[in-house]
Amino acid sequence: MILTVTLNTALDITCRLPEIRPHRSNRLHGVTQQAGGKGVNVSRVLAAMGRATVVTGLAGGTTGQAVRADLAECGLRDELVDVAGETRRTMAVVDDRDVTMLLEPGPVISGPEWHTFLEHYERLSARASVVVLSGSLPPGLPDDSYGTLIDRARAHGVPAVLDADGPALLNALPAGPALVKPNASELTEATGIQDPLGAAQKLRAAGAAAVVASLGPDGMLACTDAGNWRARPSTGLTGNPTGAGDSAVAALALGLAAGRPWPERLRHATALSAATVLAPRAGRFDADAYDRLLDSVRVDVLDPPHPQGEPCP
Amino acid sequence: MILTVTLNTALDITCRLPEIRPHRSNRLHGVTQQAGGKGVNVSRVLAAMGRATVVTGLAGGTTGQAVRADLAECGLRDELVDVAGETRRTMAVVDDRDVTMLLEPGPVISGPEWHTFLEHYERLSARASVVVLSGSLPPGLPDDSYGTLIDRARAHGVPAVLDADGPALLNALPAGPALVKPNASELTEATGIQDPLGAAQKLRAAGAAAVVASLGPDGMLACTDAGNWRARPSTGLTGNPTGAGDSAVAALALGLAAGRPWPERLRHATALSAATVLAPRAGRFDADAYDRLLDSVRVDVLDPPHPQGEPCP
Repeated sequence: MILTVTLNTALDITCRLPEIRPHRSNRLHGVTQQAGGKGVNVSRVLAAMGRATVVTGLAGGTTGQAVRADLAECGLRDELVDVAGETRRTMAVVDDRDVTMLLEPGPVISGPEWHTFLEHYERLSARASVVVLSGSLPPGLPDDSYGTLIDRARAHGVPAVLDADGPALLNALPAGPALVKPNASELTEATGIQDPLGAAQKLRAAGAAAVVASLGPDGMLACTDAGNWRARPSTGLTGNPTGAGDSAVAALALGLAAGRPWPERLRHATALSAATVLAPRAGRFDADAYDRLLDSVRVDVLDPPHPQGEPCP
Repeated sequence: MILTVTLNTALDITCRLPEIRPHRSNRLHGVTQQAGGKGVNVSRVLAAMGRATVVTGLAGGTTGQAVRADLAECGLRDELVDVAGETRRTMAVVDDRDVTMLLEPGPVISGPEWHTFLEHYERLSARASVVVLSGSLPPGLPDDSYGTLIDRARAHGVPAVLDADGPALLNALPAGPALVKPNASELTEATGIQDPLGAAQKLRAAGAAAVVASLGPDGMLACTDAGNWRARPSTGLTGNPTGAGDSAVAALALGLAAGRPWPERLRHATALSAATVLAPRAGRFDADAYDRLLDSVRVDVLDPPHPQGEPCP
């Protein structure tokens, strides 16, 4: 079972109108909503692939109830822990030009709530093959919260995949995650290094056992103790990139659980990510495209190795 | 007891940010939410004045649950009827310049749901001194729905106050509401007449026993079988006009229930409306300002009467 942890779950609302107009009344249509947060999307993809997965994290208020109602409707195993605050909403207002995102901050988590979650997480992570830690930390949690979760999982011999950015990422590295998956801008922001391989090496030096950077349409780059690789999809794809990174994480977690060779993990992650771009909503992918793309992803060894970057401060 | 009917209840969300930016990610703060819809605001004001009031209407889904949770928290008597669809959200995004409103459409109401509501309304309206019918009709309901509710109330000898616009207003007039309360633009839109008194006379000719038009900072105008009046607040007020019309309706419903003379009804409606502009949220008012303003509202007889307008088509 792959356990996904979404500490800042969300109710993701999508709605449409011809043109958003600031400082006016905007009448929306086509309103849909689903449980969200990166870890939830990872579990959604794993479940769609027929893999055992459990959703944990924090949820509260009537928005939290809406999140849990959607998990139940989708048949996703819900092990979220209740908190007093109100789970955040994200609103994607899609107009004829582009998407406007409105993002609530998430509830403030108290010390006792975090303690209750940790006890629950202990029990769940002991039964997992891999834990996936995804997304932002809600207000109130310390910056090293992911480090704590990585330590607790390791005590049960369970490796952790981390998809976070900023202080939540940097403060988790000393705990030694098996894998971190920043995107290109998160990688640069965390390290100050523009070159993805140099930046990835810097994250490894700070504690990550492996780094896979998602580079959007340019594919992925892996920096590991077994070597470095670059994977590219065969063709450029246009569609909705929301959730593509979460699908990559799902594939990488499966590859880690199965002990697959790195080039195979990258091939699956790149193909699944691209197949997600072709689907309209986060956590969904085009299964036929996934099969088709798997054969056409090109994986190259990066050689000679780039000089090691400086450790993170 | 004054029964308020909100067929298209809402969860009113207010949030802030320095500047809304279309087609970008906007991080919100200061998110608050409360049960909304015009009738709910009317009941909120009545309850704050210590008057007996009951909220009915339609609510559904997890957003409907959030609406009901807020009514319970505020101690408002909740007699909403459950529907299968999801109650709408309204989002007021307040930035340093102005407010951007994002409005969901509301759930589609089925025939059987409307029938269930009518049975419930029969029982509640029989015990009311006045029924207040406020706001838009949700999708699926016929344009003459308010006419049906006015007829049913009259069968129990209970007068109806209607605050609606467009087809929902025009199609309710033949049923003979005791009072309709359009604002200036709704009055012009419904009648095609710019002059408020001429337009109000046209609504009376179409079936409304009385018309009170709210004219924003210019006060109110009443057109009744006992005469026509104009009420003006003593001074211009700046603040948040949201809910000012609902407060006017609350005062007018109380005046109707008590059989007060029209100038007194207008005095209270104008003062309460102005005291609402001074409060930060819909359904709230500044009680001290209300007392103070009551003495300073000026009510003038409009004489000679304006020629009767043409009946509505």
